[in-house]
Amino acid sequence: MLRSLPKLSFLFSSTRNPHYLASAHRFASKGRTIRRPASRVKIGVTTRVPIRSMSTSTNSPVIASEMAAEDQVQVQQVKLLTSTIDDYGGVIVELDQPMDSATFIPILRASVSHWKQLGKKGVWIKLPIHLVSLVESLVKEGFWYHHAEPAYLMLVYWIPESPSTIPANATHRVGIGSFVMNAKQEVLVVQENSGKFQGTGVWKFPTGVVDQGEDICVAAVREVKEETGVDSEFVEVLAFRQSHNSFFEKSDLFFMCMLRPLSSDIQVQRLEIQGAKWMPFEEYAAQPFVQTSDLLKHINDICLAKIDGQYPGFSPKSTSSNFSDQKNYLYLNAGTLKRSNSS
Amino acid sequence: MLRSLPKLSFLFSSTRNPHYLASAHRFASKGRTIRRPASRVKIGVTTRVPIRSMSTSTNSPVIASEMAAEDQVQVQQVKLLTSTIDDYGGVIVELDQPMDSATFIPILRASVSHWKQLGKKGVWIKLPIHLVSLVESLVKEGFWYHHAEPAYLMLVYWIPESPSTIPANATHRVGIGSFVMNAKQEVLVVQENSGKFQGTGVWKFPTGVVDQGEDICVAAVREVKEETGVDSEFVEVLAFRQSHNSFFEKSDLFFMCMLRPLSSDIQVQRLEIQGAKWMPFEEYAAQPFVQTSDLLKHINDICLAKIDGQYPGFSPKSTSSNFSDQKNYLYLNAGTLKRSNSS
Repeated sequence: MLRSLPKLSFLFSSTRNPHYLASAHRFASKGRTIRRPASRVKIGVTTRVPIRSMSTSTNSPVIASEMAAEDQVQVQQVKLLTSTIDDYGGVIVELDQPMDSATFIPILRASVSHWKQLGKKGVWIKLPIHLVSLVESLVKEGFWYHHAEPAYLMLVYWIPESPSTIPANATHRVGIGSFVMNAKQEVLVVQENSGKFQGTGVWKFPTGVVDQGEDICVAAVREVKEETGVDSEFVEVLAFRQSHNSFFEKSDLFFMCMLRPLSSDIQVQRLEIQGAKWMPFEEYAAQPFVQTSDLLKHINDICLAKIDGQYPGFSPKSTSSNFSDQKNYLYLNAGTLKRSNSS
Repeated sequence: MLRSLPKLSFLFSSTRNPHYLASAHRFASKGRTIRRPASRVKIGVTTRVPIRSMSTSTNSPVIASEMAAEDQVQVQQVKLLTSTIDDYGGVIVELDQPMDSATFIPILRASVSHWKQLGKKGVWIKLPIHLVSLVESLVKEGFWYHHAEPAYLMLVYWIPESPSTIPANATHRVGIGSFVMNAKQEVLVVQENSGKFQGTGVWKFPTGVVDQGEDICVAAVREVKEETGVDSEFVEVLAFRQSHNSFFEKSDLFFMCMLRPLSSDIQVQRLEIQGAKWMPFEEYAAQPFVQTSDLLKHINDICLAKIDGQYPGFSPKSTSSNFSDQKNYLYLNAGTLKRSNSS
């Protein structure tokens, strides 16, 4: 189906497309203002479309359809928005300079007409929050919301007659829980100051949310340190759970991790944690909130199997791709793999 | 750290908080308009704040600070926005009725003042795209963007003096790749019509993106069917890779899955797939694009170990929680667990 076409492309662009990565990194620099003159067409270096300078007459309302019909005449009279191209037939515009709608609309229409002539499909406009006054104009011109972050709103427009194949935004939040056990078979547990467990007396494994751009194996160690002061090293992912509608309409991936403690002294982070301690595993497992939870009983079984040395999880292996310098972690059953390869 | 406080809460709200889930499901129904009179305060049933009806005088600009000072006088003169509360000290407003800024601003200010008196912290305003004319007013009143979907923009405001603990939006996109092998040790491979592999002659495993609200084990079977016409059943997750800055600034989780074929006839979906066929695994593995990719070589080793029956992955187990009717999949090393428990 069409919808999976661009999603596939974007999926693979993640490590195989330095040009797109560059864009992604630029998008990642929140709040950074990019000073570019808006008075000429700037096309990414990978395109063969000739660069044309154009004189200015921004007050004449240039209708896109007219532009298409009388390109040679009109195109000499209007500014076009500065854009870069992506590898999927789209153009990306990052606005920064304040502009009123009366000035902006003709430039936008002329630009869309120009991109249409170039055979472009998707138009991405990244609008910093200080240019909020242009949001209504863009929506009235047929743009819609793609995603937003505190500092900007990303709007999109689809030029062709064919159905839009603009890919969806991020769909999942990622959380971690940490099983940290010492040589005395005591597990590191916390009581929370807030949320559903506040005041329940429940002792639970440290948990947290993986930050954007943060590796799961890094987040687990960070959260344990933040909540309890205990240093640890990541061992492996024991299991993971996917749930839906967990945060507005978004889905959730929760990774149950095993960590090896490197220190034992506990320093409770009072802001979010009521208490933290080392508790015999049996005592943790005997808590009613654990015994009455289908999910937590499964996790208990996994921890017990782990204690018996019977349960291989997925450990992180740093891998690279041919198309990017970026190192990524592949989580796999490495122990079993070694035995299999050496056998 | 503060930032992890609300994130934790939200993480656990996913399965433990029917009230919040109800909100989440309501948010999920894109485009649905919720007809509520805006002329009275509606507080969620879990709060103890008394419900007060108020008469109307929406043209007097009511400043929040004045409201705080002269509550008893002023509060009788203004409408308040209809809101529901969440379990984290926040209020959620879903606007629907068209309103001009002159009418909206005094009501907004009075509402914020009212919520402040109730000790509320975060204010969430879900603004459908047809109310785009109110975006600028909200930003000028101190609201900022939280997230956006095609049909709406979610804006947030933090009432207290303390730093905002509004949690971040979804951070990850999720993709799958499918290892589908028949009894002749032939793997199901495809050539893509687009993206980085277009025209390269590379034969690769079917891949795709997991839709919002879709289970990984369902997405893998769906993509194989869509791209090749082959029916299959999900066996397990063999490994997963986390990468960053893959889609704008978002991260990516890619799950390598093993599926068992239930049919063999191939029907290529020409829209995104150039060709599909059953190829001897050795022939697939010998392709230069596989041999030169660190990541794909690891995945090859895993597939080989799997062929030898040496590699346990994570298989999905349907689990429930005490706090929700929702069934979720826990992916775990079930085979090893069984042996461990029975031993």
